[in-house]
Amino acid sequence: LKIFSLNANRVLSEEIAKTIGVELGKCTVSQFSDGEISINIEESIRGCDVYVIQSTSDPVNKHLMELLIMTDALKRASAKNINLVMPYYGYARQDRKARAREPITAKLVANLIETAGATRVITLDLHAPQIQGFFDIPIDHLMGVPILADYFKSKQLVEDGLVIVSPDHGGVTRARRLADRLKAPIAIIDKRRPRPNVAEVMNIVGNVEGKTAILIDDIIDTAGTITLAVNALMEAGAKEVYACCTHPVLSGPAIERIQNSSLKELVVTNTIPLPEEKKIDKIKELSVA
Amino acid sequence: LKIFSLNANRVLSEEIAKTIGVELGKCTVSQFSDGEISINIEESIRGCDVYVIQSTSDPVNKHLMELLIMTDALKRASAKNINLVMPYYGYARQDRKARAREPITAKLVANLIETAGATRVITLDLHAPQIQGFFDIPIDHLMGVPILADYFKSKQLVEDGLVIVSPDHGGVTRARRLADRLKAPIAIIDKRRPRPNVAEVMNIVGNVEGKTAILIDDIIDTAGTITLAVNALMEAGAKEVYACCTHPVLSGPAIERIQNSSLKELVVTNTIPLPEEKKIDKIKELSVA
Ligand SMILES: Nc1ncnc2c1ncn2[C@@H]1O[C@H](COP(=O)(O)O)[C@@H](O)[C@H]1O
Ligand SMILES: Nc1ncnc2c1ncn2[C@@H]1O[C@H](COP(=O)(O)O)[C@@H](O)[C@H]1O
Repeated sequence: LKIFSLNANRVLSEEIAKTIGVELGKCTVSQFSDGEISINIEESIRGCDVYVIQSTSDPVNKHLMELLIMTDALKRASAKNINLVMPYYGYARQDRKARAREPITAKLVANLIETAGATRVITLDLHAPQIQGFFDIPIDHLMGVPILADYFKSKQLVEDGLVIVSPDHGGVTRARRLADRLKAPIAIIDKRRPRPNVAEVMNIVGNVEGKTAILIDDIIDTAGTITLAVNALMEAGAKEVYACCTHPVLSGPAIERIQNSSLKELVVTNTIPLPEEKKIDKIKELSVA
Repeated sequence: LKIFSLNANRVLSEEIAKTIGVELGKCTVSQFSDGEISINIEESIRGCDVYVIQSTSDPVNKHLMELLIMTDALKRASAKNINLVMPYYGYARQDRKARAREPITAKLVANLIETAGATRVITLDLHAPQIQGFFDIPIDHLMGVPILADYFKSKQLVEDGLVIVSPDHGGVTRARRLADRLKAPIAIIDKRRPRPNVAEVMNIVGNVEGKTAILIDDIIDTAGTITLAVNALMEAGAKEVYACCTHPVLSGPAIERIQNSSLKELVVTNTIPLPEEKKIDKIKELSVA
């Protein structure tokens, strides 16, 4: 068994290697002067079970190409199995044709990974579980909920005053999983646009008055939805609002929005590591190692 | 017939469309807030012969993913044929295992292109002609030499005082092609490292004394080789030295080196468009449209 880390999740990879009690495999992943990726594996992996750890997070195209080129190198060096550990699977939101003549990039990425020579993929909280079916190789689909649940349990929030909130109808299953573990009821935010070009109204299905609400989503990207949901919950009389997600994409105005919101705390995992400028007091990072 | 341009060669694409007398196809190629590529084709292409123009130049990974995602979108929109016009084929120098456990990224890229659904590839001056064999779909391999030759002809350099120089043994065929068109003899620069860790010696095979020398290469990247060759030619008594190449990668110190060299002029094509900061007097850009 050999574990290699590329550039997206160095810290997480070190943690995983330590937990298992092995050293990370030696390989150099750098760039030529013109931006082309250069990879060299510096130890024999012939006949080995190899694990490569790499999220396809921002810069997504570079991280994806690193992963594909590494897979090619491992295949040509006669690895027995090539297991790609992709804590965050980029392009997952491009999983269907929403309009005519759109690509389905999540499927394209699955095909590229198989073409490069991967024999198994291990990932967490795919944006749509259907993406598992985009692969013809085995795919292990893990969940961030247990880690998030343990954290909230350890915080000892008053359990009879807790409610788990899904920010949309698509996330209800995930909210229910967290609710089961925390023995709490759920509520759902029902977004509706009364007329075209009129702002959405956030309607809350379920009782949140006087309660501690925990919003849960798979990805928090620009944090628009989540901060609006916080407002809606506070207006509906929630005592305080926490939020959590597996994948903290946090692009564009996300950090500013979170800072300025009345969110008590945002709990995330390190499938996408937080760069220094995103490490703010309001955000708590948990490890999936 | 429909022609689409992605982000690498907008100007060249406009020129090609004008030459053929068609309008460029409408499509939006942009980025989501987290850096993922978003493509939407805005006119029907069902049953069409489609040409997509895109060099995989720096930023190579982004340009390559644009090309693959566009190909996926065209395939799903029922294009009859998907012809990829790649004036510059990135990763071409990673075309063999030079050391153990290296990837062969030029072959990986060929596989990715086929997987995405391309039915034909049209490209110019591949770094190694063997890359044609990496594809199982038809590939048209065009040459920059005729364009470069026409330019030098139009300059009316004294033909009996001209010599075409290959900067290494790999480039002799290309140099001979240019020499044939300009009716000039060739010379070859023979690089040798006398002992390890001792600077290379540039030995010139052929007569350049008192002549106008034209160096020719496929790619000029950091311009290290070419500027050293200029020095060697001047020392060997050349009257003046021109250089030309098809693909002006010109990364890192290239522009500075060219400015500071005694090179008379560098002639390049627009397979990779020169950004504003690289448009210097010493560099002449020709169009391959
Ligand atoms: N990286 C991205 N950032 C923002 N929106 C995206 C991204 N990728 C895909 N989308 C869009 O998000 C929608 C899918 O999100 P959802 O409805 O939550 O499954 C689709 O309409 C996509 O066009
Ligand atoms: N983008 C690049 N920039 C610089 N060197 C490269 C690049 N890609 C590959 N190489 C190296 O260049 C060599 C091939 O160049 P050549 O000997 O001219 O065919 C190989 O040893 C590669 O490792």
